[in-house]
Amino acid sequence: MKLAAESVYVDRLARVRKEMSARGVDSLILSVGHDLPYLTGYQAMPLERLTLLVVPREGDATMLIPRLEAPRVVEMPSVFSLLPWNETDDPIAIAHRVLGSATTVAVGDRMWSRFLVDLIAHRPSTVWARSVTVMEPLRSRKDAAEIAVLAAAGAAADRVAAQLHSGEIRLVGRTEADVSADIGARLIAEGHDKVNFAIVAAGENAASPHHHAGSRVIRGGEIVLCDFGGTMDGYCSDITRCVHIGEVPADIAEAYAVLHEAQSAGVRAGTIGTPCEGVDAAARSVIDAAGYGEWFVHRTGHGIGMEEHEDPYMVRGNATPIEPGHAYSVEPGIYIPGKWGMRLEDIVVATTDGPRALNAANHDLVVVAG
Amino acid sequence: MKLAAESVYVDRLARVRKEMSARGVDSLILSVGHDLPYLTGYQAMPLERLTLLVVPREGDATMLIPRLEAPRVVEMPSVFSLLPWNETDDPIAIAHRVLGSATTVAVGDRMWSRFLVDLIAHRPSTVWARSVTVMEPLRSRKDAAEIAVLAAAGAAADRVAAQLHSGEIRLVGRTEADVSADIGARLIAEGHDKVNFAIVAAGENAASPHHHAGSRVIRGGEIVLCDFGGTMDGYCSDITRCVHIGEVPADIAEAYAVLHEAQSAGVRAGTIGTPCEGVDAAARSVIDAAGYGEWFVHRTGHGIGMEEHEDPYMVRGNATPIEPGHAYSVEPGIYIPGKWGMRLEDIVVATTDGPRALNAANHDLVVVAG
Repeated sequence: MKLAAESVYVDRLARVRKEMSARGVDSLILSVGHDLPYLTGYQAMPLERLTLLVVPREGDATMLIPRLEAPRVVEMPSVFSLLPWNETDDPIAIAHRVLGSATTVAVGDRMWSRFLVDLIAHRPSTVWARSVTVMEPLRSRKDAAEIAVLAAAGAAADRVAAQLHSGEIRLVGRTEADVSADIGARLIAEGHDKVNFAIVAAGENAASPHHHAGSRVIRGGEIVLCDFGGTMDGYCSDITRCVHIGEVPADIAEAYAVLHEAQSAGVRAGTIGTPCEGVDAAARSVIDAAGYGEWFVHRTGHGIGMEEHEDPYMVRGNATPIEPGHAYSVEPGIYIPGKWGMRLEDIVVATTDGPRALNAANHDLVVVAG
Repeated sequence: MKLAAESVYVDRLARVRKEMSARGVDSLILSVGHDLPYLTGYQAMPLERLTLLVVPREGDATMLIPRLEAPRVVEMPSVFSLLPWNETDDPIAIAHRVLGSATTVAVGDRMWSRFLVDLIAHRPSTVWARSVTVMEPLRSRKDAAEIAVLAAAGAAADRVAAQLHSGEIRLVGRTEADVSADIGARLIAEGHDKVNFAIVAAGENAASPHHHAGSRVIRGGEIVLCDFGGTMDGYCSDITRCVHIGEVPADIAEAYAVLHEAQSAGVRAGTIGTPCEGVDAAARSVIDAAGYGEWFVHRTGHGIGMEEHEDPYMVRGNATPIEPGHAYSVEPGIYIPGKWGMRLEDIVVATTDGPRALNAANHDLVVVAG
């Protein structure tokens, strides 16, 4: 990811401290995951050697870092100071000392549990909370620079979708895994730094929403579901399009028309102040009304940003009101076990002018040659 | 990774329960990470949707799984039963119920902390332990099938090292990042399923042991450190070789001779019953004696298997005796800040006949053309 100006991190740190005060969090500890690069520009290596940023509500933030990794950190004295530890030091004991008298400590969501278990042994009376408590209000509201990167990633994913629609990505006679690798290479060619996933599911395999692309050979006359995304400059793309190889049977055409309408309804519902579950309800009610409700087996969407899936989630039970800068997927699906499946997905950003879709690739069930 | 026969998992589960009894662990919970596939053949998706295997010391093991992911699990009724949860269920509440009256619970090392934090709120008086307590005795002692896969992965890495030595992998005029991508592609071409890392560090960059391959262009007359590995059939390779472009200056030649001797000494030291720190001491004493001690800034090695780094670690303070089937790296290094760095690494398996190196690529500082 690109390092932002130091002032961006100074500002974020000030805002997170405000959240800590408001929610009674004494200290925030961040390791592997996305909160750390959001606050410091540095991504911890997923290692048994602990990297840990300790942010007290007041006082300076300290980044414990294995001495080996220290040369990789861009230091920002106005944001954090670096505390390298040596190979035979005990970083948990050091973290415990740095945490001092903190009573309520918020822990990065993806930090490996081994470190938390070891810290608990040192601090049996600490109250542990999730970092999302203080980070979500910051991270879920994307600023203009973040939205620009999400839009660029979305446009890159759209170009790959267009290659799928044009038939440039051959399907018939290839395995799902082969097409998946092809899509991955195209995501990189279009500007992504990393491929996060490229689901390719043909025919009956499309009925498993998270199908793992495998050795199944794609044949004429079937639907192919492609759901792919990557990371560009630290932010994620995520798009789903289906194509049909040759003439579309009536049952699939009928269901797709419902899906298309449901997805548009979900996108349109994302106005400021609407509860997140309202987006889910808008898409789901269209599918329910058409009699496919029991085959729409997942939530309608997830937030997206530095993580492929992050807050806010478009799911029943989430009353969080949509705010300007919320970025999320709208991706209803219909899955008939043993027969076929379909899903249609765009990324949307909430704005005061209404929902702005970041994907513009053809939304139809495009027919490709056999 | 390849699924083993069901009997393999039945046997592992029986052994882990024996460890649980011996160590007073009532329940083991596993999610993202490698303990789960080791015990069930299934790798959890790194998702906000919780997958959790709950293994009570007595009674049946249960795998909580998001309903979406359930089709991906190969069920093994004699190992675990599947408990799918729906999108609007609370998987933490379900996990809490399944854990029942367990007092001491061992948690998978890499499980996301968010799930542990949420569980703690439900179970304030549970004593938390690390899964390594009960899994390490199993996982660190590789069986014949595991060693065969590690050897195959090592041989594949050796073939890429040979391509480096032969000059087939061009260096001069290319960026480190470009060479890194090339090495990655060759790891795949030689049979790996996944590239884990490919450090390429030229000249002064080699003095940072975990240097991130970047835009630095490789020039004639410098040392290039390449440390790379991937995963093949679920097990990891890891090898480091250095090459020098054109004639080797006297200071580098002299240091490399020391490094080479230190690495051999470390490999030879790995006999059954020797404490792990003895391997570190054997390599380090050679480097210390030659006066380079302050520039050998990391431990000598790490265990390897399903994870790139796992127990046992070859580090001062680790008195664990080496046992048959222990697999680990021996990788001393010498790093002169601002000038150059060098490291030499093989994977070794401990056997009753003595240490068996899984890498046989040329150990010299091979000179490649400019």
